[in-house]
Amino acid sequence: MSDRPVLNIGLCGFGTVGQGVWKHLSANLPALESRLGAKLNLARASVRDLKKKRAVKVPARVLTSDPLAIARDPSIHIVCELMGGTTVAREVTLAALQRGAVVVSANKALICEHGAEIIAAARAHGGHFFFEASVAGGIPIIKALREGLVANRFTRIYGILNGTCNYILTQMEDQDAPYAAVLAEAKRLGYAEADESLDVDGWDTAHKASVLAWLAHGVWVRTDQMIVEGISRITPTDFRIAATLGFGIKLLAVITRDFAKNELSVRVHPTLLPEGNVVANVSGVFNAVSVTGDVVGTTFYSGRGAGQDATASAVISDIADAASLLKHGKGGHLLGEISAVTEPACRLAPPESIRSRYYLRLTVKDEPGVLARVASVMAKHKVSIASVIQTPADRPGAASLVLTTHESNERAIGATLRRLRALGAVLDDPVLLRIGDFER
Amino acid sequence: MSDRPVLNIGLCGFGTVGQGVWKHLSANLPALESRLGAKLNLARASVRDLKKKRAVKVPARVLTSDPLAIARDPSIHIVCELMGGTTVAREVTLAALQRGAVVVSANKALICEHGAEIIAAARAHGGHFFFEASVAGGIPIIKALREGLVANRFTRIYGILNGTCNYILTQMEDQDAPYAAVLAEAKRLGYAEADESLDVDGWDTAHKASVLAWLAHGVWVRTDQMIVEGISRITPTDFRIAATLGFGIKLLAVITRDFAKNELSVRVHPTLLPEGNVVANVSGVFNAVSVTGDVVGTTFYSGRGAGQDATASAVISDIADAASLLKHGKGGHLLGEISAVTEPACRLAPPESIRSRYYLRLTVKDEPGVLARVASVMAKHKVSIASVIQTPADRPGAASLVLTTHESNERAIGATLRRLRALGAVLDDPVLLRIGDFER
Repeated sequence: MSDRPVLNIGLCGFGTVGQGVWKHLSANLPALESRLGAKLNLARASVRDLKKKRAVKVPARVLTSDPLAIARDPSIHIVCELMGGTTVAREVTLAALQRGAVVVSANKALICEHGAEIIAAARAHGGHFFFEASVAGGIPIIKALREGLVANRFTRIYGILNGTCNYILTQMEDQDAPYAAVLAEAKRLGYAEADESLDVDGWDTAHKASVLAWLAHGVWVRTDQMIVEGISRITPTDFRIAATLGFGIKLLAVITRDFAKNELSVRVHPTLLPEGNVVANVSGVFNAVSVTGDVVGTTFYSGRGAGQDATASAVISDIADAASLLKHGKGGHLLGEISAVTEPACRLAPPESIRSRYYLRLTVKDEPGVLARVASVMAKHKVSIASVIQTPADRPGAASLVLTTHESNERAIGATLRRLRALGAVLDDPVLLRIGDFER
Repeated sequence: MSDRPVLNIGLCGFGTVGQGVWKHLSANLPALESRLGAKLNLARASVRDLKKKRAVKVPARVLTSDPLAIARDPSIHIVCELMGGTTVAREVTLAALQRGAVVVSANKALICEHGAEIIAAARAHGGHFFFEASVAGGIPIIKALREGLVANRFTRIYGILNGTCNYILTQMEDQDAPYAAVLAEAKRLGYAEADESLDVDGWDTAHKASVLAWLAHGVWVRTDQMIVEGISRITPTDFRIAATLGFGIKLLAVITRDFAKNELSVRVHPTLLPEGNVVANVSGVFNAVSVTGDVVGTTFYSGRGAGQDATASAVISDIADAASLLKHGKGGHLLGEISAVTEPACRLAPPESIRSRYYLRLTVKDEPGVLARVASVMAKHKVSIASVIQTPADRPGAASLVLTTHESNERAIGATLRRLRALGAVLDDPVLLRIGDFER
């Protein structure tokens, strides 16, 4: 026992996640140490307020208010960046990597914005960067993509990556309730942040999509290069009509790669999924990811996507991998992207390559000829109508017009939307949802 | 590029799986080699008949008819045992491990029967043993349990581990068709073996359950220590009645651990699952595993459980892990069981600790007093009846009696069954199914 190396762990950030890591790591320490053949020492943790009372008690001597001191401390082998944000978190991450340490990160926003710089720093200085907790919480999806499915090239990855949005959409569907009411309730219950926009406008999902796209395809895709649309304009009517058509509605990240054209598409949008689709049946705060590889076909993963315990589970698995790595000499793990190393970098798919069917809800003046004008705009852009449902709108003199289309593409539907907005008979900004014809 | 170590791979067995590994590994070789920083050389393959024509062409010089020669060849770093069986496969596995090589195995029967010996040989001689392909085909469930969920103690693992059975059950349910007809069709389509008993009687699932139980709990459970029941006595009537009660029927492996009592239960049986349960909705040849850990909660995994491509995907991921390990010195990976190292070995749960609700179908004489006699037997063993459905049986003078129970246990239900069999009014051996009240 005594010849086991001691690995010192520093937690930068000791909020919900940091305390969860401390709590669960402490509880399972002997078993983990025995398996890893190394002693894990929870050496330091940084907090904003040294005097604040915390649910998880730690000795005062391990606490500091300076996360950078932990990152730079040469005695700390594994630096866990659990603060969030992209400024101090970036400094902490880079400082630790630059001295060749291992960084474990749960910070998708940071990876999305500064991933290229972070990975370059790790490569240049012999540091290592683990990020299982950054996407889909307790589901080991990073490990599955990077190691378990290493034989595959990934034609499609899609899923639910934000529990807050999935909770809101599930509640709206189950209770036939409007978005605003469900959001208010979600805030009350702690399922949504006071400022909800990072979640409900799709940005958090986009950060995670960026991480997965890089891992699977070796390309950093910025959120401003993606379609990113949120859930705030979805109504109970949309759920009712989608159900009539045999669909549920989920906020999805969708990453598709066309290897023949060498094009990559990364997008985030509310999507109509067939009721039998396994992702469509994932409800509440759960996350789910469907991965299609050229060898294995489609595999599917679900679990809790956030929260103290699920995130701690992922962080601790990274700590275990880091310990295994450090014990046996560095370089033993597959750092980073899967396909970029040898394949020519793929280009982002232009809008005309991104094809799907569409669901379009218009609020129009209830007067003769409106449907003809709408249909004419769509025909002009070669967007073929598959179904039409017209119902009275919730205001006098207006009608709700829901059209679904046959397969079209983002360029055509974008042009169609611009023309529809310009029609005098179209009263509100149209609501556009994609239809995800995913068999699995 | 030239300083990359060359790792020689030998395939013992070059049937469906072996050829799949060769094909997919060759197709993705440059990308894999680049990621791993090692050259992978498909050096040798053993076949039964050197002259047989094969779909995947390989140079004649790599072929041998002697798998042991590959296992003992000191130039072969990674020995893939893809022959099946438990005699020559055991010799091959032990021979390779005894010279400190890495063995990659898809052989659940071998691991179930000789796992303790294999792991001991690996430990004694510095060999390594990888077995991702042995359970659930292309789903990286071994890696998830061993590494991704390493922070957890597993209270429950259950799932569909045999695609043949799930195909048969799905067809029976969808087409309201009897077992024998569906089995015959499955054989014709190549979804079932000529000798189907390994699959339909639950033994293949039991082998896989044994592997998962060892990995999660460090105990080798033999199939004769498990409840192992197959699917051959299930009828379309069972599906119809189960549906009426809100259930589907799946053949499940169920591994439960009671940490307070330190008891482990491993069992394989057809199970009624609530229609909303995610495992209940996995159809056809797909496999699915639900894993509940004390930190992460429940995570879920599904994908193709067998077939050339899915199995090759898993074998190649093990080859990649092996390459990573060999490149950086051995010992870098978490070999073996998760919890046995430090926790006291758990005991197998006695029958009275294995609790569930039950579904019991009896064919009885259609005469007065039969239900009273059946109910009296159950009451005597304190098995409380929850529902009764009596319908005419498919023979004159007989009735079909389906009872569901409140929660009971294996000892009580076993004693009940023995008494029911002895009743003159009970015409056939009763059909007993467990009810899996698994929320997730």
